[in-house]
Amino acid sequence: MQGRRKALLDAIDWRADGVLILSPVNRRYFTGFDASDGALLLTRRGSVFLTDFRYIEAAKAKIKDLECLCYDRFYDCLLAQLDRFGVGRLLIEEEYVTVRQEQSLRELLEGKVKLAGGADQPIFALRSVKSAQEIRWMQQAQAITDQTFTHMLSFIGEGVSEREIALELEFFMRRLGSEGVAFETIAASGPNTSLPHAVPTDRKVRKGDFVTMDFGAVVNGYCADMTRTVAVGEVSEEQRAVYEVVLKAQQTALSTLGPDVLCSDGDAAARDVIEAAGYGKDFGHATGHSVGLQIHEDPRLSPKCQAMLVPGTTMTVEPGIYLEGRFGVRIEDLVVITEQGFKNLTKSEKSLIIL
Amino acid sequence: MQGRRKALLDAIDWRADGVLILSPVNRRYFTGFDASDGALLLTRRGSVFLTDFRYIEAAKAKIKDLECLCYDRFYDCLLAQLDRFGVGRLLIEEEYVTVRQEQSLRELLEGKVKLAGGADQPIFALRSVKSAQEIRWMQQAQAITDQTFTHMLSFIGEGVSEREIALELEFFMRRLGSEGVAFETIAASGPNTSLPHAVPTDRKVRKGDFVTMDFGAVVNGYCADMTRTVAVGEVSEEQRAVYEVVLKAQQTALSTLGPDVLCSDGDAAARDVIEAAGYGKDFGHATGHSVGLQIHEDPRLSPKCQAMLVPGTTMTVEPGIYLEGRFGVRIEDLVVITEQGFKNLTKSEKSLIIL
Repeated sequence: MQGRRKALLDAIDWRADGVLILSPVNRRYFTGFDASDGALLLTRRGSVFLTDFRYIEAAKAKIKDLECLCYDRFYDCLLAQLDRFGVGRLLIEEEYVTVRQEQSLRELLEGKVKLAGGADQPIFALRSVKSAQEIRWMQQAQAITDQTFTHMLSFIGEGVSEREIALELEFFMRRLGSEGVAFETIAASGPNTSLPHAVPTDRKVRKGDFVTMDFGAVVNGYCADMTRTVAVGEVSEEQRAVYEVVLKAQQTALSTLGPDVLCSDGDAAARDVIEAAGYGKDFGHATGHSVGLQIHEDPRLSPKCQAMLVPGTTMTVEPGIYLEGRFGVRIEDLVVITEQGFKNLTKSEKSLIIL
Repeated sequence: MQGRRKALLDAIDWRADGVLILSPVNRRYFTGFDASDGALLLTRRGSVFLTDFRYIEAAKAKIKDLECLCYDRFYDCLLAQLDRFGVGRLLIEEEYVTVRQEQSLRELLEGKVKLAGGADQPIFALRSVKSAQEIRWMQQAQAITDQTFTHMLSFIGEGVSEREIALELEFFMRRLGSEGVAFETIAASGPNTSLPHAVPTDRKVRKGDFVTMDFGAVVNGYCADMTRTVAVGEVSEEQRAVYEVVLKAQQTALSTLGPDVLCSDGDAAARDVIEAAGYGKDFGHATGHSVGLQIHEDPRLSPKCQAMLVPGTTMTVEPGIYLEGRFGVRIEDLVVITEQGFKNLTKSEKSLIIL
């Protein structure tokens, strides 16, 4: 974690003497410690982790390479530490700190320390390139997710409700060691599959339905993310045709991925296939997003994203076609960019499964 | 929901022509619709819910009393709507909106609309008094929570781990219809019960242990919250004595509740009992907090809170004694203040259960 903290101080360069990290996800990224309260102050003259009496014992046990202090009044303690390390210009997380929190900070620091802008971009830049260890945790999370999908193939059938499917998915992942769910599980059936972000209902699966499951396990805070659409009993010619278009779009996008590829090109690869098949207007979201400690991270595989893929970038590849009120299909893998191209962390079958 | 929206516009009075609601919890409170994206613009000349491609179909199906618009570019759409409704002064949620979001808004609105402060306080004030319907949902959530506690009495025993208890609790609640968990489940045993915020571990329950469970179901977004401490096999005289002090403190605090009672007096009622028994320093948290769409809402049953209870205030009553490294006891009910006094939504047994 010390390397990450040094890298951030190097990245902010001349802009400030220190960075105040308040978001739980960045606190965890830079300390390895996960708690609902705490603040990390990184400065060129030294760094310190501040937390309260509920977490100080656990913090000291977990964070070995950084001083940990217990505060009674957070703002007083922060002010003393800023003074101790001679901080004159401080960066905060402008994409996390609320307007009200910033007002409090400004009042506290007035005439002493200048708030000099956001540290968000350099932090996101660091987090967007995953280490071998981070990738191993994501791989473990994805392995749990794949194993759960296999289990679900024997669970899903006519008469089972979407809520029952979601519950079984989550329960199974937890039993396999997942810390929770990476995001709210999507389990949609029949016409509900046309909602990209459907919430599970009491609707029971019927013959001829598509069932879409979008879900992910969590290991050491790192998320997995996968979508599969399966059919129950039988499928129409149209359902099969749409499925094949989505599958081709997904595979085409995958085939473009590798170092130095522009994100928007990866998106276009999937979009072109769907547009050529006449479904352009039925694919309204981006092709993918990066994943890590958060389920949605930058860069994005979207028409607008001009970021370049590099080894260590993680990315979902998840095109879909949604026919309002009728049915939808989405297929999603989670990959990591490597020196040679990419590694697909998702191992589950993608050709159409009819249960 | 129309009544709530009107009440907010009445409450902000002369301060502004409109309010922009971006937080998921307040969006849900004012529309009844739950989604991870969207914005609600309330103005004196009309209101509109804005969301994107992923949610527009579901939003239109759910929100019957409000216009729903699908945007391609959020800020362009927002600007057009502010113009349409002639908004000159706008309030935002300053305790939710980030510094960066506010900067974007300021740039967008420059010379057109003035950001006139926060709508947080009037929103919290509205949310702090629950309607009959909100109380019914909390009652349903608490009924699931009670039923789950009864089930757990036959599940807990020597050799069962804290993690297994937590998992069983959560999935039993989900099977009974809970939308999820109201907060991270606490299931602690033996010496771990002395940590008020214990995270479930692999420790297995032994004879003579206390087991503390703090958990809650969710119905229509509304949370329940209950804690019970049970014993396994046998208890020492000291364990029994501490249990009785906590129970007396909890019952004494309950007996003070009703309309026009000062929150700090409710807290003092419990604290006095615990202090009189010599355990004052072992009760380090507030006696309770309000609950609703969020698990921790204002007002609080704390030494500092000078709010007055009114009919429709919900409140947990949860004193505890924590003897470091040895054992702890917490007993918690969820109540709602009524015209006559209060109604206890929690029905589970409170006298010491030895399994």
